[in-house]
Amino acid sequence: MPAFSSDADDKIVQRLIRFLAKDGHIYYGDAVLPAGVSDIAKTTTARVISGDIFGQHRITDQVAEVKLLLSPLSRKDIKTVRCLGLNYEQHAKESNLPIPKYPVLFYKPVTSIGGPTDDIPVSSLAQEGEGLDYECELVIVIGKEAKEVPESKALDYVLGYAVGNDVSHRDWQLKRGGGQWGLGKGFDGWAPFGPGIVSSELIRDPNSLKISTKLNGREVQSSSTKDMIFNVAKTVSFLSQGTTLLPGDLIFTGTGYGQEAGTLAKAQRPR
Amino acid sequence: MPAFSSDADDKIVQRLIRFLAKDGHIYYGDAVLPAGVSDIAKTTTARVISGDIFGQHRITDQVAEVKLLLSPLSRKDIKTVRCLGLNYEQHAKESNLPIPKYPVLFYKPVTSIGGPTDDIPVSSLAQEGEGLDYECELVIVIGKEAKEVPESKALDYVLGYAVGNDVSHRDWQLKRGGGQWGLGKGFDGWAPFGPGIVSSELIRDPNSLKISTKLNGREVQSSSTKDMIFNVAKTVSFLSQGTTLLPGDLIFTGTGYGQEAGTLAKAQRPR
Repeated sequence: MPAFSSDADDKIVQRLIRFLAKDGHIYYGDAVLPAGVSDIAKTTTARVISGDIFGQHRITDQVAEVKLLLSPLSRKDIKTVRCLGLNYEQHAKESNLPIPKYPVLFYKPVTSIGGPTDDIPVSSLAQEGEGLDYECELVIVIGKEAKEVPESKALDYVLGYAVGNDVSHRDWQLKRGGGQWGLGKGFDGWAPFGPGIVSSELIRDPNSLKISTKLNGREVQSSSTKDMIFNVAKTVSFLSQGTTLLPGDLIFTGTGYGQEAGTLAKAQRPR
Repeated sequence: MPAFSSDADDKIVQRLIRFLAKDGHIYYGDAVLPAGVSDIAKTTTARVISGDIFGQHRITDQVAEVKLLLSPLSRKDIKTVRCLGLNYEQHAKESNLPIPKYPVLFYKPVTSIGGPTDDIPVSSLAQEGEGLDYECELVIVIGKEAKEVPESKALDYVLGYAVGNDVSHRDWQLKRGGGQWGLGKGFDGWAPFGPGIVSSELIRDPNSLKISTKLNGREVQSSSTKDMIFNVAKTVSFLSQGTTLLPGDLIFTGTGYGQEAGTLAKAQRPR
């Protein structure tokens, strides 16, 4: 996976983060996790990466202290944000919808990108109606240009994986958008992801991951990526048919069982 | 409209084009139209623009000869491509659909951008099923960052206007996409626009324009932008609610009366 190897010594970026450091600079880095810690959100130091994340780059010897984790890619790194709907069998069943024959594709604008600890703004428009909701999803990060890629090669085009929230407003999505989901899911900051991007070298099988959401400490979504209707390889391959996927493109792969419409609205709507 | 004034002498870029010149370079330019010619597609020379189209730039004295007109903005100039569905009263009626209460919003990826004379590729996937179609549309080009903009100020954020084709595949759009239009409208090159961007200084009322499509010389779509349900000011204002529109964002404003599903498929499908 060339996009993930450094030019200098072939050291792989294992857990890519972007962060505000205590020295006041913003860096890309490879998270340094203390022994026994696996949660990237707890990263306190990182090796600074120099160069282009999607091209020539290397992990330097500089170790920086993390003050704040940002979205692991910046808005300018990302060209297109794709999302799948109804991609978990159990979720399709709980929604009383038939299992889709092809991936259900929609988009978010790049302005919806947010970091893992950013507030999610709820504008006046989004305060109309009901049904502000979370959707915890596995996010695929494309590492190199992909077009007409067969399923058997699809994972070679993946830089790594992150967790994302496909924040959704059910009224605007389903009732006021004329059937199109763009409006109810595309507001500023409504696609937060992170805290890091874990290399596809570390995650060899992206369809064997537990994925869950906690709301104020309580688990409200829990499933496994093995329940996906279109797994990661199928998704990348299918979306590349007739369409060029670019380095830095994100694919939110759909949410699993258990989101509760309105819960987030009640918990987080500004008063 | 600062985004459109040059820093040197306040000359406005009237008809922005991007082109391959006979000298082999690619330039942005202000089209020089011979007396009596109003069709930008017939441009043979242009004054070269230096600097950033969305920032500091100026019209230089260099006149270059046009070899080929390209999309007036490049892929890297464009962040997000938004499109409206069902935005013409007559078209909504011919589709037997109710007049929408809010703009029907969907997106295309930046890879769908194409130039005015580019071939429109029809991939294997897009050759499945029936209903390849054209949709001639007025395209709004955003000139400066816009958020929560009132209708009365909305036109101040518009750099100018172009013509675009929201190329669509009815089967993939309507029957195979699970109700979402992204897939059937988002293939590479399926959002050609141009030949130029006419300054909003020249088009003071964007809702009084005739718009039509010719297919092999025969007029197949004809309407006026005054038939729009959400006019340009309403569209820009509404889309900026809760969402930041960025310089270079495109808004395809929906198609008018008369597209004929399948006609383009029969005319242009590769054999």
